[in-house]
Amino acid sequence: MSAFEKLVKHSKKVANFEHLYAISSWDQSSIMPSGGAEARGAAMAELSVHIHQMRTQPQLEEWFESAAQENLDQTQSAILREMKQQWQQATVLPDEFVEAKSLAGSKCEHAWREQRTQNDWQGFIANWQEVVTLSQQEAQIRAEVAGTTPYDAMLNLYEPGTTSESLDKVFTDVKSWLPDMIDQAIEKQASEPVIEPKGHYPAQAQKALGKEVMKLLQFDFSHGRLDESVHPFCGGVPTDVRITTRYDESEFVQSIMGIVHETGHARYEQGLPRALAGTRAGEARSMGVHESQSLFFEMQLGRNPHFIAHLAKLIKGRFDDSTEGLFDVANLQKVYTRVKKDFIRIDADELTYPAHVILRYEIERDLMNGKITCADVPELWDEKMQGYLGLSTKGNYRQGCMQDIHWTDGSFGYFPSYTLGAMYAAQFMAAMRKTIDVESVLDSGDLSPIFTWLNDHVWSKGSLYTTNEILTQATGEVLNPAFFKQHLKSRYL
Amino acid sequence: MSAFEKLVKHSKKVANFEHLYAISSWDQSSIMPSGGAEARGAAMAELSVHIHQMRTQPQLEEWFESAAQENLDQTQSAILREMKQQWQQATVLPDEFVEAKSLAGSKCEHAWREQRTQNDWQGFIANWQEVVTLSQQEAQIRAEVAGTTPYDAMLNLYEPGTTSESLDKVFTDVKSWLPDMIDQAIEKQASEPVIEPKGHYPAQAQKALGKEVMKLLQFDFSHGRLDESVHPFCGGVPTDVRITTRYDESEFVQSIMGIVHETGHARYEQGLPRALAGTRAGEARSMGVHESQSLFFEMQLGRNPHFIAHLAKLIKGRFDDSTEGLFDVANLQKVYTRVKKDFIRIDADELTYPAHVILRYEIERDLMNGKITCADVPELWDEKMQGYLGLSTKGNYRQGCMQDIHWTDGSFGYFPSYTLGAMYAAQFMAAMRKTIDVESVLDSGDLSPIFTWLNDHVWSKGSLYTTNEILTQATGEVLNPAFFKQHLKSRYL
Repeated sequence: MSAFEKLVKHSKKVANFEHLYAISSWDQSSIMPSGGAEARGAAMAELSVHIHQMRTQPQLEEWFESAAQENLDQTQSAILREMKQQWQQATVLPDEFVEAKSLAGSKCEHAWREQRTQNDWQGFIANWQEVVTLSQQEAQIRAEVAGTTPYDAMLNLYEPGTTSESLDKVFTDVKSWLPDMIDQAIEKQASEPVIEPKGHYPAQAQKALGKEVMKLLQFDFSHGRLDESVHPFCGGVPTDVRITTRYDESEFVQSIMGIVHETGHARYEQGLPRALAGTRAGEARSMGVHESQSLFFEMQLGRNPHFIAHLAKLIKGRFDDSTEGLFDVANLQKVYTRVKKDFIRIDADELTYPAHVILRYEIERDLMNGKITCADVPELWDEKMQGYLGLSTKGNYRQGCMQDIHWTDGSFGYFPSYTLGAMYAAQFMAAMRKTIDVESVLDSGDLSPIFTWLNDHVWSKGSLYTTNEILTQATGEVLNPAFFKQHLKSRYL
Repeated sequence: MSAFEKLVKHSKKVANFEHLYAISSWDQSSIMPSGGAEARGAAMAELSVHIHQMRTQPQLEEWFESAAQENLDQTQSAILREMKQQWQQATVLPDEFVEAKSLAGSKCEHAWREQRTQNDWQGFIANWQEVVTLSQQEAQIRAEVAGTTPYDAMLNLYEPGTTSESLDKVFTDVKSWLPDMIDQAIEKQASEPVIEPKGHYPAQAQKALGKEVMKLLQFDFSHGRLDESVHPFCGGVPTDVRITTRYDESEFVQSIMGIVHETGHARYEQGLPRALAGTRAGEARSMGVHESQSLFFEMQLGRNPHFIAHLAKLIKGRFDDSTEGLFDVANLQKVYTRVKKDFIRIDADELTYPAHVILRYEIERDLMNGKITCADVPELWDEKMQGYLGLSTKGNYRQGCMQDIHWTDGSFGYFPSYTLGAMYAAQFMAAMRKTIDVESVLDSGDLSPIFTWLNDHVWSKGSLYTTNEILTQATGEVLNPAFFKQHLKSRYL
């Protein structure tokens, strides 16, 4: 057996344990009774340690050295490249360091859940300082190996190949037109009244509606499920993708579009190359590309009036609400594209969302690069929030820098993925339109051509190519924010 | 750390992986989409190998030797005894042998699913011969280590401490009165008309009813769930017990009593000693004792008219069926105690069930001890079926010796657990009645005194004591079939 083959075999072995971790983790978040938490936590921690031990087994180093000398074809080389990067990321930090960061993160996150509701910045920073210090050290260690800036090394955990130099350029461009566009959209919408849902929409009916929408989006129910959880997510494994949503019976808007979003993630997973299953190359490219698929579904398809026309048809007669005009396509379209300057990122609309992300990016970049300290964050937050959205968060930590979970456990570098995903999605859509009449396809009710395009250009490629290669092969160029700008302009102005 | 402590630590580590196996296995049987089967199978097989490797780690031998010299208290000694027995059972067979038997079993079981419907005995025996041969070898190897007969060594996998010598005695006694009792009961019931359900009983309503019954039985929903599967079972882990049932919308009788049965298994699991969690001593005593709890719930409680009165109340108004008298306590009681000589064990009533088990016991005992061959089985089956239940299975393999899954993968020694459980349950009930007025407790609707008794005498003991010790401590004597006979007599004659 060649060293390359040994590495693949080992990778598939690890993947089997990761499969069980994924299913147990889904179970924990969606259906496990509360009393099962402690024992499950212990079992999953044990499995986690086992997976880490396998990922860092000493003989891997020798196998990687030998495999580099072996005669590999293009696909094999890509598989090796991805396995090696994964191995390096797993081995670069000493075990004790990983444990210390994990402990500090758990402690900070756990306390944050209460501190946030209390607006307790002093209490929070007491724990958070340690998380930030350890994350800075992690960034430093990773940066030395990768030859990048500290922040870029963290960024590469979520979007390999992206640099803050390129992000700065892209985000500077977005900042030059976004605030104006937001103001114009709000002004335009002020004269367009919208009817918001105000009735009672039973969860059971929302669920049935959600499943119909998933069918329209060709979710493969023989390889996946729809369930409920407090925080919607897409989990499981490619052969068995588990998406979740949350039902608020006072409206039906969020659960349905949440399902559209998660179905985008799910179809990417279901479309990953089966032949590469169990190797890193058979997995999704990056968080940014993953988000590009969920946002392609949610924003590019889901908010297209020709898609909303299907939604309106599927909703008809399902709810006991006779409000005149509520379920009309034009009104639903307005409900789903309302723009509002507000504090909370996860509740933000498509147009203001990038402002929330850019703000976080600028702060975490400087924090990881040691240019600012934890204590500087609230003031910077307030300043940027005023600049981008005209809102002050002075003294309002709860709705300011304490609102997200990401920083509490040290997941610095994650935020840009959201807006990168939105921009990739717009760029994919523009490219797709060169060969597909998207609105006619939507009108036909058989969305296959759209999915075939996504499958050919994104899903089936797994991680065989870099993000830039995928973008270039699919759209003819690397990330270009002009497509995103054009998309927003035509929808909101 | 003492050797004993090392063993306990190791056992808890293995238990963490078994926890994940249990949850994945439950998921596989109850909610996994069909397309997930292959990858899940591979993942679970990988975990299985890992668990086996941990259970047979070379340093365990040294630890067991050292621990035997250590100064242990009574509880610790019991923990060590159980861990050692489990270790010996895991290590006694060579790995290649285990794999060969597992493969032969899978092959035979898989083909059997089709062969059974085709009544294809020739096809079946072609695979089954290998399973039997390997099982005989297994029995031989285990018998040499344990110093028992081959069959007894297999029996001890499911009901440690039981011998065929004692079983022969008990079953000979049962055979001396059971056939007559069956005839008398059938004759008596012939003059007592019963109204069988004939309407449509929606699964949703059966499920809601089932949950009410589980509440009455004080199932702890913070440590467990109710779900659906083709073959009802009780799975999961003690902190998170998952029971399943199956809904047939043409009747409601089976799903409800199935839930009562599985709730018995579940409460035993939920009542196991938490302090011993992760060691064999903290697990259920045996298959027989497990079945004694499910049958205590299903037969001793569930078919008691004072329990059925609760059922009748809970059913009232739940189904759209106005059949006069159907839901009356007296009629439900008859529905649940109807006796019929029939071919299929899993559909058998309480009274004929032991005949099905004794028949299987006698055949598998002689098969494992090499006194008969596979080819002898159909004729022996027919002969015993005629003797015990007056039914011929000549040429009818499908409803004869090919009806059960147990023998297809070589689980010889399992069958007696069912009837041992029924007998233990009757004996526990007789002992309970010495201090508890069971009918008054049932009438009160708060069944706590009954569960407290079971918890004190069975559940909380885990495997700290042998089955005989548990029986003696709880009832003053070892297994005595007279209690079972008395129970059946008072219910059916």
